[in-house]
Amino acid sequence: MKLYSQEILDDLCDDAAELDLLVSQMKDLMVGYVNEGRKPGAIVVEHKPPEELKKLIDLDLPYAGIGIPGLMPMLQNILRYSVNSWNPGFMDKLYAGTNPVGVVTEMLIALLNANSHVYHVSPVLTLMEDCVSEKLAKLLGMGERSGGITCPGGAFSNQLAMLTARNYLFPEIKTKGYCNLGKKLTVFTSSAGHYSVEKTGMALGLGLDNIIKVPCDDQGRMRPDELERLIIQSLERKETPFFINATAGTTVLGAFDPLKEIGKIAKRYNLWFHVDGSWGGSLVFSDKRKHLIEGSSLADTFVLNPHKLLGTPLQCSFILASDRRIFKQTNSLGAQYLFHEDSKYDLGDGTVGCGRRPDAIKLFIGWKIYGILGYKKRIEHAFKMAEYLTNLVKNNSKFKMVLEDPPNLQVCFWYIPEGMKILDREENENEKKYQIWKEQMALVTKEIHKRLRERGRFLFDYSPLVLNGKELPSFFRVVINAPSINEHYLDELVKEVERAGEGVLKYLEENKNFQNGLRSENHNTNGIRNMNGNGYVNYNGVLGKIGIANGNSTNNNEINDFIIANIIN
Amino acid sequence: MKLYSQEILDDLCDDAAELDLLVSQMKDLMVGYVNEGRKPGAIVVEHKPPEELKKLIDLDLPYAGIGIPGLMPMLQNILRYSVNSWNPGFMDKLYAGTNPVGVVTEMLIALLNANSHVYHVSPVLTLMEDCVSEKLAKLLGMGERSGGITCPGGAFSNQLAMLTARNYLFPEIKTKGYCNLGKKLTVFTSSAGHYSVEKTGMALGLGLDNIIKVPCDDQGRMRPDELERLIIQSLERKETPFFINATAGTTVLGAFDPLKEIGKIAKRYNLWFHVDGSWGGSLVFSDKRKHLIEGSSLADTFVLNPHKLLGTPLQCSFILASDRRIFKQTNSLGAQYLFHEDSKYDLGDGTVGCGRRPDAIKLFIGWKIYGILGYKKRIEHAFKMAEYLTNLVKNNSKFKMVLEDPPNLQVCFWYIPEGMKILDREENENEKKYQIWKEQMALVTKEIHKRLRERGRFLFDYSPLVLNGKELPSFFRVVINAPSINEHYLDELVKEVERAGEGVLKYLEENKNFQNGLRSENHNTNGIRNMNGNGYVNYNGVLGKIGIANGNSTNNNEINDFIIANIIN
Repeated sequence: MKLYSQEILDDLCDDAAELDLLVSQMKDLMVGYVNEGRKPGAIVVEHKPPEELKKLIDLDLPYAGIGIPGLMPMLQNILRYSVNSWNPGFMDKLYAGTNPVGVVTEMLIALLNANSHVYHVSPVLTLMEDCVSEKLAKLLGMGERSGGITCPGGAFSNQLAMLTARNYLFPEIKTKGYCNLGKKLTVFTSSAGHYSVEKTGMALGLGLDNIIKVPCDDQGRMRPDELERLIIQSLERKETPFFINATAGTTVLGAFDPLKEIGKIAKRYNLWFHVDGSWGGSLVFSDKRKHLIEGSSLADTFVLNPHKLLGTPLQCSFILASDRRIFKQTNSLGAQYLFHEDSKYDLGDGTVGCGRRPDAIKLFIGWKIYGILGYKKRIEHAFKMAEYLTNLVKNNSKFKMVLEDPPNLQVCFWYIPEGMKILDREENENEKKYQIWKEQMALVTKEIHKRLRERGRFLFDYSPLVLNGKELPSFFRVVINAPSINEHYLDELVKEVERAGEGVLKYLEENKNFQNGLRSENHNTNGIRNMNGNGYVNYNGVLGKIGIANGNSTNNNEINDFIIANIIN
Repeated sequence: MKLYSQEILDDLCDDAAELDLLVSQMKDLMVGYVNEGRKPGAIVVEHKPPEELKKLIDLDLPYAGIGIPGLMPMLQNILRYSVNSWNPGFMDKLYAGTNPVGVVTEMLIALLNANSHVYHVSPVLTLMEDCVSEKLAKLLGMGERSGGITCPGGAFSNQLAMLTARNYLFPEIKTKGYCNLGKKLTVFTSSAGHYSVEKTGMALGLGLDNIIKVPCDDQGRMRPDELERLIIQSLERKETPFFINATAGTTVLGAFDPLKEIGKIAKRYNLWFHVDGSWGGSLVFSDKRKHLIEGSSLADTFVLNPHKLLGTPLQCSFILASDRRIFKQTNSLGAQYLFHEDSKYDLGDGTVGCGRRPDAIKLFIGWKIYGILGYKKRIEHAFKMAEYLTNLVKNNSKFKMVLEDPPNLQVCFWYIPEGMKILDREENENEKKYQIWKEQMALVTKEIHKRLRERGRFLFDYSPLVLNGKELPSFFRVVINAPSINEHYLDELVKEVERAGEGVLKYLEENKNFQNGLRSENHNTNGIRNMNGNGYVNYNGVLGKIGIANGNSTNNNEINDFIIANIIN
């Protein structure tokens, strides 16, 4: 074995033959794996905690290599204990499994081992990046001069957006830093915005205190009236508001901030208008759904991750600007000695990175093969399936939706085990009792989640959430994305949760210090499951108004410390 | 064609069959491409300027997709006009082509479509990342608690290093930003350090003015005496020095900063000691060469990119710390609601990103297959070949080395065309004359580079450089990295440059406004090619002392504005 490996190492001209052999073997492994993932009843992952898993995989890194013959057995073992994202039951994150075209595109990228920082080492890939970015920006209505580039993920795209805005608006910071700037820059994002906006504010040295969280309405959307109020407050404090992040598709609930209204406010106060459409931006490919991101044309910068809803392989994230030249203009160090002439196409110069994977071609190739039409079908299938699951959940008395009408492809719900005590109005207003109840509901969700994970047929996450100032107990978030999801899988999903929920209350009472006093024999008489026709739960103040927001909520002042939980994506 | 594509799209259960078909077709394309790249005399890239290339590739993005049958012809066309990095003549960047094991690893990553931000969606990949990071840090001697994570490229790794240092040393900046901090933070990096250190300082809001460039010696290494002097100066100005970036393997010359001495200075003044070993860090795998990075054990953070010298696919960049917990401790927003319990293995929490490609397994799998021994052989082969090329160049009177003895795998040289005027001492000291001469030599290099690019058999970059305060004319930088480089290719390379150099001076005189007055009939009587035994060129002050630095240079004050050029990598 060692000899064979040594032969391969020594005979360096044999790369083509070795590649032939390995890709053939890998192909069989791959096809088998996809088939496995699509088998009815297949598990998504054989879950093992770290210490246990360490015993099942070989983590020894040797002095003398195990050689080529050791490769396939190792890969097989990696696959065995990994999450099979080809399984439609993988609904844990905003991305799903990819598709054969995606896999082959990655093979191309690997074959080329190309770096798309400068044109002369990646000519075709650079032109494709430039072209697909432009098309995407124009599809979003960002104007004649719009276009963009890719970054390694939505968080880095958001970072580049804020950095570009800051460098453009305050070029002196580039050279002098903040020292003696005499300005306190502030950023506005909704309480449901992605945490990368905060991390960026922290990284850029603005300080988390200066990332101002705008309250959301009861559907998890940024409230424009609150935004404006907070901008005015910030100005009154003699701060310098400069950047608004609106979210098109929040991480937990999938909510769409009202881009048009927010965009107008941004213009009114002369702030940079950034849209984090990492998740929801892809709806631009669907005639039927693109109204949800109406106002995208007002954005100064817009982030869109095709690796989420469009199924390109991870990662593929675009940062688009109404003026495509702005990245280079504001972020380049102006070093002619780094980038030779014709540097218009040296895309790396506009980023804070250096080497770059040519991620853009994943969308370029996908778009070419599937067309806008293909993506549109994919999106509409997903919405149909989300609606199907929503109806299953709504019509099952053991479940309760978090939002009755999900705005997007996340279906969020609780499982209410039989006999679970639901607080009445008086108990709800008793902070201590509510806390105990909330923790117990969270334990129920967590226990069921644990059981589901052990069974392994479905993988979806859970999350707590603060809505209208009230902390909600953890609930399930099922993400509908993969085109392979069908009605059958969703029927199974609901049954699987019910199965996992069997006896959960009894188990918790016996093992987890559940307070029996809060248990109710008849959980349907009062509480969480009773709703009137207006979509109000009958104990407004616990879950707040569940239904369609009217934007005129009367208790504006109560939601100051509103924080939405992010499931990381 | 459209029908077939539609069938595939509609029949979503057919992914396995489609994958089977496409990977088979792709395999043939790949094997053919590698064979093509290894054919004697094959060109690296058919160079086309952007406007011309746009006519040769199909950049139309359609409403209705072209369907699966259109995929392979499109990929074929991409390959046709792309840089073939399997060709040993690709010596343009610090990375080379990858290898079959690398390609198959990327296939695995694509198949899994995995995200290594949290353990529960990438259990095996997370453990492998944790394990290989730890092994790497310990190999570098960074201590019992050392370890790390990957970032999407060396620039982002450097960014995370500086951010971590800043957040650790000045935690108040995380929340309050720099406003009212009352401290001006300063960073030290050599004039030859990578530009990502400056970009990071700019991004983090420190300001480029506060990134203090430490002069290098005549071999391009940071001068510890100058570093200490500049730290003291900064302290005297009541600034707050906090971060030193030392470079192990600079971008142009490949120089190694003296890590041990710099590390001691860092400890003395209580500064964070970061080593950018993106390029040179991999020498830790070679007994024979690892003395070049002696002092790595003193680093607080260390960046190492296996995608360069170890041949893993792009990208694979590690940021290692003497205390592996520090990334999470300093950069997490402490959000329990984002990362569930057991978050020790949720590696994304320590970064400023969110989703992450599992880049670490590229090194894990490579290490497993090749072993330390395999990497060591690869490195030693590269050094042997660099030495071979150096000797070819030194023994050819038409060439002139930039450093007589390259410290690393970059062989940098000028081609001096017959009849090229070399300035005598008096002319050298005439600033105007020197400028004209420098520009002419730069034109020679550029013209030859252009010709080489048109011929396409070799692709290597050129760069200007400021050494000891004097701007050197652009020269060629040939990077020796790929294991497929052998003596034959290097013989050919030298011949190819000679061929491209034929008639260059005449051409430039006729077309590029060359000043004939600076032309000399006998270019060997005086000037650049005459050296005495001590390695001094005979007009010290132009190229300065070329040879082994003694650290006691007498003209310390003359190299204040020393700037080294970076070829981007």
